[in-house]
Amino acid sequence: MSHKWIVGVDLGGTTTKIAFIQDNGEIILKWEIDTDNSDFGKNILKNISDSIDQKLETLKQTKEILVGIGLGAPGAIDLEKGLIYEAVNLGWENNYPIAEILGGVTGLPVVVDNDANCAALGEMWKGAGNGAKDLVCVTLGTGVGGGVIANGQIVHGIKGAAGEIGHITVIPENGAPCNCGKTGCLETVTSATGISRIATEAIHTYYNESKLKMIFENNSKISAKDVFDSAREGDQLAIEIVDKVAFYLGLALANIGNVCNPEKIIIGGGVSRAGNVLLNPLNQYFQNFAFSTVAQSTSIDIATLGNDAGVYGAAWLIKANLESK
Amino acid sequence: MSHKWIVGVDLGGTTTKIAFIQDNGEIILKWEIDTDNSDFGKNILKNISDSIDQKLETLKQTKEILVGIGLGAPGAIDLEKGLIYEAVNLGWENNYPIAEILGGVTGLPVVVDNDANCAALGEMWKGAGNGAKDLVCVTLGTGVGGGVIANGQIVHGIKGAAGEIGHITVIPENGAPCNCGKTGCLETVTSATGISRIATEAIHTYYNESKLKMIFENNSKISAKDVFDSAREGDQLAIEIVDKVAFYLGLALANIGNVCNPEKIIIGGGVSRAGNVLLNPLNQYFQNFAFSTVAQSTSIDIATLGNDAGVYGAAWLIKANLESK
Repeated sequence: MSHKWIVGVDLGGTTTKIAFIQDNGEIILKWEIDTDNSDFGKNILKNISDSIDQKLETLKQTKEILVGIGLGAPGAIDLEKGLIYEAVNLGWENNYPIAEILGGVTGLPVVVDNDANCAALGEMWKGAGNGAKDLVCVTLGTGVGGGVIANGQIVHGIKGAAGEIGHITVIPENGAPCNCGKTGCLETVTSATGISRIATEAIHTYYNESKLKMIFENNSKISAKDVFDSAREGDQLAIEIVDKVAFYLGLALANIGNVCNPEKIIIGGGVSRAGNVLLNPLNQYFQNFAFSTVAQSTSIDIATLGNDAGVYGAAWLIKANLESK
Repeated sequence: MSHKWIVGVDLGGTTTKIAFIQDNGEIILKWEIDTDNSDFGKNILKNISDSIDQKLETLKQTKEILVGIGLGAPGAIDLEKGLIYEAVNLGWENNYPIAEILGGVTGLPVVVDNDANCAALGEMWKGAGNGAKDLVCVTLGTGVGGGVIANGQIVHGIKGAAGEIGHITVIPENGAPCNCGKTGCLETVTSATGISRIATEAIHTYYNESKLKMIFENNSKISAKDVFDSAREGDQLAIEIVDKVAFYLGLALANIGNVCNPEKIIIGGGVSRAGNVLLNPLNQYFQNFAFSTVAQSTSIDIATLGNDAGVYGAAWLIKANLESK
């Protein structure tokens, strides 16, 4: 199949990324379309199919060149049936049968998995994972998501809720409420939203001079980026906030390490762009909280594929599926 | 191979358990020998081989009936080479080549894994796991050990340190020192030793009447069993201690659940004999700390194989190995 192409689709709430990818991971073409979530999302898959047809025409190719479509979707997936239990931001309810519908309109084999899992597979295949068979990916964005790979396979668990790293409880008592209904989740203190929240709280009990305080006084808000930028410039308050973020993230990642001992824990998402100002204290706390063998053998790395991780990982679903036959 | 037998060996610091087990998991014969850890443990594997020969003779069988030996050993294992990095309590150092030596003296294929992993495989195959492909086993004994199974395979991680559940940090600040060199590990508060320690501490700051206090005054010590027995009889101090144990165990198990979403988390070891007096508050805390889908889909069960889990799991290593060929 080496001359054939796999379609990788990363389905998001506002944008859908699509790519034609070769067996060896080389991208032939990569593009985006809007995700039309009107009318309970009934056009979404049809639009993907049409867009694929158009691009094939542009490239003067026929469907013959495609071996299948891998798709990452934002929600918990029934892998066997290729359906998503629910995806509120797409308008899909009641076990929407993605594989059946998309397979029907395109005539191609379709394999579906969760988008965070696809990002993890993408980093394993072509990104920071560099082929590692034991890998955990953590995405620190508006929320905190994750994907766990063990023995080269995604760990889904019994109901697809493996990798809910954002909902690891790091503050078991008196933690802030999380969107998930619990309190004290990792997401409440290490997502961009969470960092902004704890920074805003910290400002109100900090009585020294601070650049971060000035930013808040000027803009009436503070972003996670403000916190990292100020810390990098030596602002004491910002450094303390980053230290707190690193403490909780280091605790959670070390405990994941103590359970899975992955070769790499890969951090992606907007917050990961902070770089060393976060990584340095994070590595310190990780070393403190990890079992010695884990501290020595599990490394923390920054994701390298950025927004492309999803399409790579989605394509990998098809590649793995074909190779297992 | 259904008429043939697998040898399962559970190698412990003082006793080695051995069994002849059929392909379907039926035990033909099960026995124990002393583990001779004198002279850097050089007799250990020879003794196992001799003992197998003797039992075959007793049963009027020849080695022809054996397909291979699976062995669980107390330490981190290099699976591919079948060697143990080190096993202090056996006298083995410097990458002791178990598979090579035992294979040499017996003439049989040998597969080796860590003992906690074998116990998990045993529970998966013939015990409380009941065939579940996603399973976590936690052994609460003198220490706290664990084994993680995902997609039907043991998760070893990059250096065999996956499943180090006893060293999940549950008290990130000011926790008690652990044997591993860290502080605040799960083992420090939920092992038999840990429970005894926190009970002894609690007694010194408890000023009401208490049965547990009386036990301490009579024996100058308190065991984990004393704590659970007293809690079962309604002793307030004991109930508070059990609640604390359940809190930390529930936190750790929920966080494992949030990472792996196993079908079952199986609790074994001496402490698990406490039964409902521990399980009831444990389930409560697990529900509080687990992500909703995990809380609904991952159950906590008590191990059913007791001391036999190791030999079953060791035998399963051979079974899986043969079936994959």
